Amino acid sequence: MTFGATATTPVVVQPGDYVVVDTGDPLPEGCDAVVMIEDVVYPEGLDASSLGTCPVTLFAAIAPWGNVRQIGEDICAGEMLLTSNVRVAPAAMGAMLAAGVQEVEVIARPRVGIIPTGDEVVAPSANPQPGDVMEFNSTIFSGMVRQWGAEPVVYPIVKDKPDLVRSAVQRAADECDIVLLNAGSSAGRDDYSSRAVAEVGELLYHGIAIKPGKPAILGCAGEGAGASAIVGVPGYPVSGIIVVEQLVKPLVEHLLGCSADHAETVEATLARPCMSSLKYEEFVRVRLGVVGGKTVATPLSRGAGVVTSFVKADGIMSIPQNSEGLEAGQTAKVSLLRPFEDIANSLVVIGSHDPLIDEVAQLMHARWPKLSVASTHVGSMGAIVAAKRGENHCGGIHLLDEATGEYNEAYLEKHFPKGGVRQVECVYRQQGLMVAPGNPLGIGSLADLAQDGRSYVNRQKGSGTRILADYTCKQAGIDPATIYGYDHEEFTHTAVATLVAAGSADAGMGIYSAAKMYGLGFVPVCEEQYDLLIPDYAWDTPMVQALLEVLRSDAFRTRMEQLGGYRVDQPGRIRRHYK
Amino acid sequence: MTFGATATTPVVVQPGDYVVVDTGDPLPEGCDAVVMIEDVVYPEGLDASSLGTCPVTLFAAIAPWGNVRQIGEDICAGEMLLTSNVRVAPAAMGAMLAAGVQEVEVIARPRVGIIPTGDEVVAPSANPQPGDVMEFNSTIFSGMVRQWGAEPVVYPIVKDKPDLVRSAVQRAADECDIVLLNAGSSAGRDDYSSRAVAEVGELLYHGIAIKPGKPAILGCAGEGAGASAIVGVPGYPVSGIIVVEQLVKPLVEHLLGCSADHAETVEATLARPCMSSLKYEEFVRVRLGVVGGKTVATPLSRGAGVVTSFVKADGIMSIPQNSEGLEAGQTAKVSLLRPFEDIANSLVVIGSHDPLIDEVAQLMHARWPKLSVASTHVGSMGAIVAAKRGENHCGGIHLLDEATGEYNEAYLEKHFPKGGVRQVECVYRQQGLMVAPGNPLGIGSLADLAQDGRSYVNRQKGSGTRILADYTCKQAGIDPATIYGYDHEEFTHTAVATLVAAGSADAGMGIYSAAKMYGLGFVPVCEEQYDLLIPDYAWDTPMVQALLEVLRSDAFRTRMEQLGGYRVDQPGRIRRHYK
Repeated sequence: MTFGATATTPVVVQPGDYVVVDTGDPLPEGCDAVVMIEDVVYPEGLDASSLGTCPVTLFAAIAPWGNVRQIGEDICAGEMLLTSNVRVAPAAMGAMLAAGVQEVEVIARPRVGIIPTGDEVVAPSANPQPGDVMEFNSTIFSGMVRQWGAEPVVYPIVKDKPDLVRSAVQRAADECDIVLLNAGSSAGRDDYSSRAVAEVGELLYHGIAIKPGKPAILGCAGEGAGASAIVGVPGYPVSGIIVVEQLVKPLVEHLLGCSADHAETVEATLARPCMSSLKYEEFVRVRLGVVGGKTVATPLSRGAGVVTSFVKADGIMSIPQNSEGLEAGQTAKVSLLRPFEDIANSLVVIGSHDPLIDEVAQLMHARWPKLSVASTHVGSMGAIVAAKRGENHCGGIHLLDEATGEYNEAYLEKHFPKGGVRQVECVYRQQGLMVAPGNPLGIGSLADLAQDGRSYVNRQKGSGTRILADYTCKQAGIDPATIYGYDHEEFTHTAVATLVAAGSADAGMGIYSAAKMYGLGFVPVCEEQYDLLIPDYAWDTPMVQALLEVLRSDAFRTRMEQLGGYRVDQPGRIRRHYK
Repeated sequence: MTFGATATTPVVVQPGDYVVVDTGDPLPEGCDAVVMIEDVVYPEGLDASSLGTCPVTLFAAIAPWGNVRQIGEDICAGEMLLTSNVRVAPAAMGAMLAAGVQEVEVIARPRVGIIPTGDEVVAPSANPQPGDVMEFNSTIFSGMVRQWGAEPVVYPIVKDKPDLVRSAVQRAADECDIVLLNAGSSAGRDDYSSRAVAEVGELLYHGIAIKPGKPAILGCAGEGAGASAIVGVPGYPVSGIIVVEQLVKPLVEHLLGCSADHAETVEATLARPCMSSLKYEEFVRVRLGVVGGKTVATPLSRGAGVVTSFVKADGIMSIPQNSEGLEAGQTAKVSLLRPFEDIANSLVVIGSHDPLIDEVAQLMHARWPKLSVASTHVGSMGAIVAAKRGENHCGGIHLLDEATGEYNEAYLEKHFPKGGVRQVECVYRQQGLMVAPGNPLGIGSLADLAQDGRSYVNRQKGSGTRILADYTCKQAGIDPATIYGYDHEEFTHTAVATLVAAGSADAGMGIYSAAKMYGLGFVPVCEEQYDLLIPDYAWDTPMVQALLEVLRSDAFRTRMEQLGGYRVDQPGRIRRHYK
């Protein structure tokens, strides 16, 4: 029909010899090619509204099947759309519908029964009684198995009675595909777990070569379709989570017949050495930060508590059995606990602790949801060390030079002889002695603590507050050894405040805002200058630029006034650029 | 109490002077340290059951606060647990409960209204009528926005009437935070979308510089808390998905205040050049494979249909505006559509098509759920090219050497003079002419097709079947130019079968199993040898080893018998290792 049409020898096609179609329409009977609307020329004075009733002119030939999608171009009957045992993604649903597939057989979500046990364990409450251990493991484990595609079933808390534990396990094994028996699996006086497993089914292993998680139990009950796996999960949540991740996830994957989740991993450079035992495969929680294009992993203290570990951990690094550990600078594979994108968008704060860091995090994240703050409290000297190693984007410093009474400059000159950092104004803050509410002991100075029966709680060496305490002792001619508890070190102002509030210590040095948070008495010692150290390599990152904007905002000023004990002058101003 | 205890000067502690505690118990009144049970020595003849009532001996002193976790070691009151606008992970739930937080304010899931439009569009059905276009976009888009944390609301299909479209948009804008108006946004006769958006609210953009997805529309309606974003989404699903990903996801993220999902990306090496227009940012769907440690991206044909694109695509590569495209060997960032772990565990099959590849995929995945198969049909020569470039793990080959009548050896010797590949036996299969059921035209050979009014459909150059067709013509002294449709090339046996079944061609060469699948007549031409080419670099991968196990299994043999047209001798046997 269009054969031979060219720019000089156009072909005119009469109405009736062509049919108007839309993209996606089936090819009408008797047609074998489609001409694009852009290539159609209408008779003088007419337009697209006359299409179908007017002749049209074509200046180029169209080959048979031109602009026609062939039947079967996409997928043909008999070709396999998806293999079995795959997760059906949204696009695959569309593909199935396009191929006329209206129904698919699916695998039922595996049921995971979770049995909390323990005489001392109670349901979570806002006001626990002394001695109560709140049962939140079942909440964590439920969330984990739900993420993997299983259905959690949480059973009531079971007391430490062998027959109660056994019948709870029996019931859960009857009702579920996998049973998690939580706590009671370490070798203490409450160890009924392995007995219960052995009585209900078969005890396969008690104790596995991983750390944390050593005392885990593995067993099974029932047969065929009614078979259940039983996992004894240690009660300490940090261990429990590792065991659930290592033992329960593969079970869920086996039942689902496919991978349970992404399990994104990255190669990270270790910021500190991390020793390990030859006896176990060890799982170390790490914080991650992307600084200067390098992903840096900082192992969290292995004794770290529940909250810290799992709110602060960005990933889990595995150190193989038979390895003595890793050196600083070595790289290791880290399995991520949050998306890498979030980690790459985190402002890595390593330095002196101040509650204002949390406030900055909040203000920054609220304004730029993709940005977040990952802060580690290692004191002012820690900020300097981290910046030298290229591991932080910024860090708080308040280092008093005893010779001049000035803050920070002497330290930065000494540690960065070649420059490469900026000293940025943040706030001035009240340091003093936090004491019991109303100061019942009438403590007026550190000298009052060098008395029998009075106790002190200190900050760690290298922190600006410790330097201040040491300096104050020296000025007053006090021998620190005469102060009971001077060697007891804590890492944050709030940790010190907590111990004073709990009556474990009579006083501790710290900032006013921490004392206020805990309703403590406060004996002012001095006002100090709290600056931020920002290495040049971090200056142009969106995170640091966002930080500076937050510092300069009215919202920050208002928040500091609410916290109390701060004087805000020109936060965000560069005091000095060390070149 | 334990002061001075050593191996030579043990200390005996009387009952009443100690209290038995479990891990996790609070420190009892009057105590300041915990001794581990392993360090306690009982009096002669007694054991742990007497603890609490017997004296115990300690051979080492324990420091005050030894084995005691301090209050506040984990987290202190006043410290920030989580900033606002974060997704609460399971461990964070535990952390909140541990910290006594029972309730949190959450952000409501954004409601995303989806309006399918079009006169020709019908709800999906297993038996569509000719001309029906099945509406499955709303299923795909629902799944996508649900994955991001939004709640989809699918409205009934709206006919192409301006007032119907307008009132549907108005209703959805009243009820939802985001409105997707699907189809009708390309400049065809059905373009009511932009008008409807302009009438209900404000039309911001019509047409954006991305491809596919150019005709997208962006608008808004309402104000304040009642404001809605309106997105006109192209009807062609491949374009629609890109537009939803590029425009709707950021809107959902904005409403949620946090990142919507992982969006894992990888650096991949391009297997083929990929040209692009300077005018648009172009999104190219790619298949990915990890071969020899390198992640290789193969762009999918841009004309690829819905099903193929979104079942086969592993990721989306973006080529920036102002770039003319990428060369083979260049690396590019690819945003993943499935977890990288799955991609790394895929057997990359590039070579000749046979439905048995699908069967192998099914058998392999069923047995090893972590393994999968990614196959691309590019013909036998394509298998050789891919192996030379290091891009596949295996590929089907059935290359007839006209001189000897042998299969594959001559080709492998020629193309791998230095060796590096294995030729592995797979199956023998019937090749022949697929014809209409019952062979009404009485076609007996290719010669019968060289007649006026008869048509043929061919396979692409480089495929073993094409070589066989060319060889058969030569043997019979037929000039291929005399066969109508000899130049019409399809890429798979099933695509050829589909066209014969649809009556678009009277015959096409292909394998028996494809003819059987479509209930076609079949005129045998010869039995050919279908081998697998496996490069040495891929041999030791778990995927190739699993493939070999599948080939050697009874299940494979049984399945081949069911498909029909195959002779199975010793599949998995190495015919020859080219060194």
